[in-house]
Amino acid sequence: MKTIASTDHVLHFPKAELSGGELVRPYECPERWDYIVEALANSGFSAPQAPTPLDMATVEKVHGDDYLRFLAQAWSLWEAEGYQGEALPMAVPNRRMQQREPENINGKLGYFAGATETAITATTWQAVQSSAACAQTAARLLGTSETSAFALCRPPGHHAGFDLYGGYCFLNNAAIAAQQLRDAGASKVAILDVDFHHGNGTQDIFYERNDVLFVSLHGNPGHAFPYFLGYADETGKNEGEGYNINYPMLPGTRYSVWSDALTDALDRIDQYFPDALVVSLGVDTFERDPISFFKLTSDDFTRYGNAIGKRKHPTLFVMEGGYAVEEIGINTRNVLQGFLNA
Amino acid sequence: MKTIASTDHVLHFPKAELSGGELVRPYECPERWDYIVEALANSGFSAPQAPTPLDMATVEKVHGDDYLRFLAQAWSLWEAEGYQGEALPMAVPNRRMQQREPENINGKLGYFAGATETAITATTWQAVQSSAACAQTAARLLGTSETSAFALCRPPGHHAGFDLYGGYCFLNNAAIAAQQLRDAGASKVAILDVDFHHGNGTQDIFYERNDVLFVSLHGNPGHAFPYFLGYADETGKNEGEGYNINYPMLPGTRYSVWSDALTDALDRIDQYFPDALVVSLGVDTFERDPISFFKLTSDDFTRYGNAIGKRKHPTLFVMEGGYAVEEIGINTRNVLQGFLNA
Repeated sequence: MKTIASTDHVLHFPKAELSGGELVRPYECPERWDYIVEALANSGFSAPQAPTPLDMATVEKVHGDDYLRFLAQAWSLWEAEGYQGEALPMAVPNRRMQQREPENINGKLGYFAGATETAITATTWQAVQSSAACAQTAARLLGTSETSAFALCRPPGHHAGFDLYGGYCFLNNAAIAAQQLRDAGASKVAILDVDFHHGNGTQDIFYERNDVLFVSLHGNPGHAFPYFLGYADETGKNEGEGYNINYPMLPGTRYSVWSDALTDALDRIDQYFPDALVVSLGVDTFERDPISFFKLTSDDFTRYGNAIGKRKHPTLFVMEGGYAVEEIGINTRNVLQGFLNA
Repeated sequence: MKTIASTDHVLHFPKAELSGGELVRPYECPERWDYIVEALANSGFSAPQAPTPLDMATVEKVHGDDYLRFLAQAWSLWEAEGYQGEALPMAVPNRRMQQREPENINGKLGYFAGATETAITATTWQAVQSSAACAQTAARLLGTSETSAFALCRPPGHHAGFDLYGGYCFLNNAAIAAQQLRDAGASKVAILDVDFHHGNGTQDIFYERNDVLFVSLHGNPGHAFPYFLGYADETGKNEGEGYNINYPMLPGTRYSVWSDALTDALDRIDQYFPDALVVSLGVDTFERDPISFFKLTSDDFTRYGNAIGKRKHPTLFVMEGGYAVEEIGINTRNVLQGFLNA
């Protein structure tokens, strides 16, 4: 299995995220990438390859033009105001407010914010594009000789909606990969999101489409970020009705319960007969993850990688979350090894 | 003119607000109250009187039950999580997300947030109730021998919507005063909001009602907080259609332009024939206000107080914003003196 990764990821590392009422060192930090690269190297995986440049035509099919313009301009607009901190939103268009993009950068930040903990820095946009390029390049591999690939994306993507950022995400790497696969000829693509947090951005992007099935296992949104999407009764809309499947689970969920949901999810994916499977791979379901509440062990990651592999879909893994930094490499490797050994 | 004020205001003073990507000392600080009390005392106003306890029956007519329960419980839920900072939101239900109140306090904070800069502390709720009590008590005075009164509220209120907090506001003091006047027999009440920032909360509360006319002069929301309400085409809805009037104005607006809008606003209020007028009095239209962009001088405050007084409505002033702290006392006093000298 080839790994696509970009060293540009270091260009996104804000000084702080908003957490518990404080500005703290971001949980989503560059060492995450290093631990994964190291663990894969130690287990005989081939060295990561750099992505080809991002083709924005694919990106424009899953994100809004106004949103992409905002991401490209946000830092220069913020810098022009002379603020000392990194770009964080402080006003949001909640219930009954106008959905009009303001001219002021503070207004723009809130207009496009699905969450408010995630800062934008001077070099964020470059890192984000390179991360999306990894997903796109890896998706291209599936169309050639490869039956699986790993896009080691950083920053992650599954919280990025059609025109919303937050939760450490800006461009939706998994959605871009799925769109790339569609554009390259796959008639149907399934996305399986096993990150602890609901893939609200991915759901948002494909909610009215039936050519991409979205299936997510995650912490119940009443109790867990992103809080405002991920309920079981969100099943898609219009042409997408029936093509969005959520498995929200409660605090303390162990592998015995989680794996039942996975089996059901994989059955639903099989019944969809996808030409390719994109796995949004977060390993924050781990029992010692600092900001999550599932109880999977390192061996459980091997088990579920194996369960996914047994379904024999052409499969692209796209890296999402995981914040127990020292174990992130082992747990990610375990999923991929379990998959390959199926 | 009697002033109603509560020393409980000191109970709300977070260590920080989120501004320019940093946690900074809040612009909305206790000294604001002190400067106003001092300036009024120096000009022969009678000493402030304490409010009577807040009657929640009035409050419940302008705010949602779930929102009031949240405000009362927020700190204890936050404290139970063991966070080190004060309660700030980090996820919000933006476009296409669920409008369901989560169980988790981080989710609740975002669900009820109209802006995300404003922290909740252990004693915020007591200060907020006492501030609203000032508005309610002052409103009761208008029903007796008084033809005017001043509610020196802190924290302010006009950004607090039916079920939204933010912009330093939690309960909408002006809305509570207007509702109190209605319940005491006024058939129609007008609210004139002269704070630099649009009174988005007040608009939200009365947007579908015709018994309370809302008129606001403020910075254009494309350029100024609260960004997502305050456009001229927001004119009310259903029974409230035609009873919401906004005068958004651009950066650099001077008194010559601002006072034309005021004259028009006062004409519209006269044509409504209200039984009472509530003025949401923010003095952040001042030329040296640190977070606003109008250019009124201290003398202009006297002028517009006089213009309001000439209309001879029973008038209740409710304190809102103003962050050029050393001048806030003078500018507030100037409005009230101008009014009384009309």
